[in-house]
Amino acid sequence: MQMHSYRLQIPTRGKGLYDFTAQIARWLDETCAQNGLLTVFVQHTSASLTIQENADPDVIHDINTFFARLVPEDNRLYRHTVEGPDDMPAHIRAALTLTQLSIPVESGRMMRGTWQGVYLFEYRAVPHRRSVVLHLIAGA
Amino acid sequence: MQMHSYRLQIPTRGKGLYDFTAQIARWLDETCAQNGLLTVFVQHTSASLTIQENADPDVIHDINTFFARLVPEDNRLYRHTVEGPDDMPAHIRAALTLTQLSIPVESGRMMRGTWQGVYLFEYRAVPHRRSVVLHLIAGA
Amino acid sequence: MQMHSYRLQIPTRGKGLYDFTAQIARWLDETCAQNGLLTVFVQHTSASLTIQENADPDVIHDINTFFARLVPEDNRLYRHTVEGPDDMPAHIRAALTLTQLSIPVESGRMMRGTWQGVYLFEYRAVPHRRSVVLHLIAGA
Repeated sequence: MQMHSYRLQIPTRGKGLYDFTAQIARWLDETCAQNGLLTVFVQHTSASLTIQENADPDVIHDINTFFARLVPEDNRLYRHTVEGPDDMPAHIRAALTLTQLSIPVESGRMMRGTWQGVYLFEYRAVPHRRSVVLHLIAGA
Repeated sequence: MQMHSYRLQIPTRGKGLYDFTAQIARWLDETCAQNGLLTVFVQHTSASLTIQENADPDVIHDINTFFARLVPEDNRLYRHTVEGPDDMPAHIRAALTLTQLSIPVESGRMMRGTWQGVYLFEYRAVPHRRSVVLHLIAGA
Repeated sequence: MQMHSYRLQIPTRGKGLYDFTAQIARWLDETCAQNGLLTVFVQHTSASLTIQENADPDVIHDINTFFARLVPEDNRLYRHTVEGPDDMPAHIRAALTLTQLSIPVESGRMMRGTWQGVYLFEYRAVPHRRSVVLHLIAGA
C-alpha cells in the first residue's frame, strides 16, 4: 500500500457551490492508483464540502437559498460580527455541512453515484483561494 | 494490509430511517478482518446516512418529524420541482446529514457505542433500491 | 503501514463545545507516525464532533446559540421525552453535525488549517465522560 497527498487550491468568486469533481479525478489519475480510499479535507471554517446532484443547476440554486434562509446574515443574531455580516453565518453553515469526505476508489475511479458531484460550498462574499487537501491510501 | 469493498443494496419502502448495522456487521465478518477502518458511502443525493440511537423508536420518529418541519415539502419554496415535491427537500436533507461515515474496527467489530445504529435516511416517498458502498482497509 | 487506535475520555461539564485538538495531537506524537490518515469517532448519539474556528470565543458562543434556537428544548415537540428535555434535541443536533472526522497527517501533524480546532459538541446539561476513538493508518 502507498499514500499520496496533494494540496488543491480552489479560487472562489463569492458565495455559492463550486463543483471540483473533475480536479479530484485528474489528481487520482496522476497517482495511477487502482483501489483505495480517497479523503477530501477543507482547511477552512467558513467554507465546507458537500456532495450534491450535478444534473439540474436549480438544485444548487435551491440549496443556496435554503442555507441563506436557515442561517440569515443578520448581525443582530450574532456576537461575532467583526469579520463582516457573512462570516458568522459561514461558520454555522460549515458546521451544518461537511469539512471532510472520504470516497472509496475502484479501478482508478471514485465509487460515486452517477449524479453525485463533489462541491466546495463557499459562504464568503469576497473572492478567496480555498485550500483543500486530497489524500489517498492506495492498494497494491 | 488489505482492502475489501462491497456494494450493498438497501430496499426502501418510503420515507424514513432504515437501520442496516447488522448487514454491515455481517459483511465485516465475511472479510475475517480483525482491525481496520470501515467506510460506508451512499451513492445518492436524495438519501443519506446517520448514526442514531437504536433503543427507543420514538427517537427515530422525532428525527423524521424534525427534518420534515425544517425542510418542508412545499413547491413554492423551490425551483427544482420537476421530480416531485419530495425531491428538492431530499437533496437539502442529504446536505444536512452525511453521505459517508468511517468507523474504526477492532477485534472484528465496529468500535461503535452500545446505542449507536447506522441508518440509511430515505427521503423519497416511492420505494427505491439504494446503493451503499462498504469499504475496508484491514490491518495485518 | 501500521494501524494504531486509542480510546480518549473527554469529561464534559454541561452543554457546549470542548476543544480537544491538543489531546489528539499529543496521541499522534506518541505514535511517532509521519504520514497517514487520522480518524476521530465519537461513540455517542447525544454528543458530536465539529471543526470550528479556534480564535474568537464569540464564534463558539454563536454556534451554541444557533443550535439552541434551531432545535429547541421543548417537550411538546417530541415524543422521546423520558430522558429529559435536553435528550431529544441532543440526538437531532448530533444528526445535523458529525459523528466522525478523518484528517490527513503529514510530517507528524494533522493537515488542518491554522484556525481549525476539533471540538466535542456536548448537548446534555449534566456532566458526562464522553468516549472518542482515535484511529490512525500510518504510512511507512
